[in-house]
Amino acid sequence: MPHNRRFLLIRRPNGEPVPEDFSLVTEPTPELADGEFLIRNHHASLDPAIRGWMDDAPSYMPPIPLGDPVRASTVGIVEASKAEGFAPGQWVMGLNAIEDYSVGTIGGFTQPIDASLVPSVTNYLSVLGAVGMTAYFGYIDVCEPKPGDVVLVTGAAGAVGSLVGQIAKIKGASKVIGIAGGPEKCAKLTSRYGFDAAIDYRGKDLAALTDAIRAEAPDGVDIIFENVGGDILDAGLNNLRHGARIGLCGLISEYNCVEKIGARNIWQLIVHRASIRGLLVADYIPRFAEGGAAMAAWLQQGRLIADEHVDEGIENSFDAFMRLFAGSNQGKMILKIT
Amino acid sequence: MPHNRRFLLIRRPNGEPVPEDFSLVTEPTPELADGEFLIRNHHASLDPAIRGWMDDAPSYMPPIPLGDPVRASTVGIVEASKAEGFAPGQWVMGLNAIEDYSVGTIGGFTQPIDASLVPSVTNYLSVLGAVGMTAYFGYIDVCEPKPGDVVLVTGAAGAVGSLVGQIAKIKGASKVIGIAGGPEKCAKLTSRYGFDAAIDYRGKDLAALTDAIRAEAPDGVDIIFENVGGDILDAGLNNLRHGARIGLCGLISEYNCVEKIGARNIWQLIVHRASIRGLLVADYIPRFAEGGAAMAAWLQQGRLIADEHVDEGIENSFDAFMRLFAGSNQGKMILKIT
Repeated sequence: MPHNRRFLLIRRPNGEPVPEDFSLVTEPTPELADGEFLIRNHHASLDPAIRGWMDDAPSYMPPIPLGDPVRASTVGIVEASKAEGFAPGQWVMGLNAIEDYSVGTIGGFTQPIDASLVPSVTNYLSVLGAVGMTAYFGYIDVCEPKPGDVVLVTGAAGAVGSLVGQIAKIKGASKVIGIAGGPEKCAKLTSRYGFDAAIDYRGKDLAALTDAIRAEAPDGVDIIFENVGGDILDAGLNNLRHGARIGLCGLISEYNCVEKIGARNIWQLIVHRASIRGLLVADYIPRFAEGGAAMAAWLQQGRLIADEHVDEGIENSFDAFMRLFAGSNQGKMILKIT
Repeated sequence: MPHNRRFLLIRRPNGEPVPEDFSLVTEPTPELADGEFLIRNHHASLDPAIRGWMDDAPSYMPPIPLGDPVRASTVGIVEASKAEGFAPGQWVMGLNAIEDYSVGTIGGFTQPIDASLVPSVTNYLSVLGAVGMTAYFGYIDVCEPKPGDVVLVTGAAGAVGSLVGQIAKIKGASKVIGIAGGPEKCAKLTSRYGFDAAIDYRGKDLAALTDAIRAEAPDGVDIIFENVGGDILDAGLNNLRHGARIGLCGLISEYNCVEKIGARNIWQLIVHRASIRGLLVADYIPRFAEGGAAMAAWLQQGRLIADEHVDEGIENSFDAFMRLFAGSNQGKMILKIT
């Protein structure tokens, strides 16, 4: 049997993860029982949500057990099978882990995919995966867009944010403003992703962020697609138009914080009769075909750019994951395992 | 001309208001211009919202100018008139101020009321006024109730909260839990207002509040009607059921705070795909007839208890107002001016 390298969580991070919270081990590849199949993982999706699964706190999914490999969506090829419908050589995608080999079961989260439909099979981890579906349904369904909306996207250069900004333009927003970190990313928002304006949050406190948004949206914003939290969310709350909708997708600024900040300016929800609504892509699984068709069509029409940032080697898992919090990735963060 | 005692705001409170922020003065009663009428204010409504109007901060209404009397809803009688439709002797209600005499104008916020329809004309400041309409539309419209809901009301012994709990029961909630301060108020929630359970927040930190709600609602709550904020809101956020709706009516725990806390646990909105939506009763003015009819019918049927707490004398304005923050009022807080 081949060896199975696995990137284990061995200690729960206290705030920001450190290398000592993890261990890369090599174990024998598991034997298959009836109804199981062996997946050779080729790529893993690195997402901020994974940080939440490392905490022993109630959430929408149980924590990653200590000693288990770090949970992640992967694409891979079936290498051996005792399960009908999963023949060796079949490309599959599922919620597995950062490891060479995972075991899938019939009726589990791993499903066959057609690699011939996409330029790169990694697209199933980005624009046609959870990230793309989060952007599509989070914007279309949770933010209730109307033509002419002024839209603010935070974490706008990230995997989800860059797609949301483009979807907002396609759906008739009159102005799309993105917030990102650093001049390079801000330039990319307007030159590559078609945002109308970009705000660099670096070096700006709450008052400066508030003013910067106001300068771009003097009458306030109708929609905020929120990925970040903290001062950035509070500055957005200071710039609401009446009836504004805030789709709460993530709070990446808080995932490594022990003390949560949340949203301090919720009084503004009363002032503007606005709402914050949490979104989780899992709710939309029954509608993924609709979302996938829309995203694929826009891609083909050249209306959507979906960048991917691929780091190679399971031994680089920690550094690749931490890019998400440093913001040093240039597109959807993907780890090439093999 | 009679003298006009006026309770002026002369300094913006820094945190909790102090007597020195106000001044009771006596001025000549104003002369009327054409289209104006003179209102002899009998009662003023004291509401937590007034505290917000004292701050020089952007809100849904301009701040009370320094040197002006404290803005408040009043009921009174027209004493003199140069305005068609407002004859002397007519009862009126409007957004005026804590003063003996206010000047109304045609097309202004002051409207005639029929004092013969209600047991007490003060009902127009409570169950048929902004408080009653806030409870009615805030619950019916913003919280989107469904039969069988588990409902949590904070500030439950207050003017709005006590009505919301009763409306929730009328509208088919399976369980209504109220949070209030002290054993007396908690006893009143269940014995007088028909709540199914009461939680005393005094002496409880966030963890204890979270546990207390969980004990009453082990599967979480479908609706929170939020009047308080701070730890009480965060504890509610720790106990959401999937798809929960939070109607954000007020944040009384913060009105006297310079540093705002907001909602620290908004991550739970993602976990449970829940929403927070701000509400302001002014949005429902076109539907007040509907709300008034419903509240009046329930009152007549004995299904609704609307307590009022009347303090007497404009010279007691400060102490009466501060009851709202000490929680020492037993029902809708009203000041009898004359």
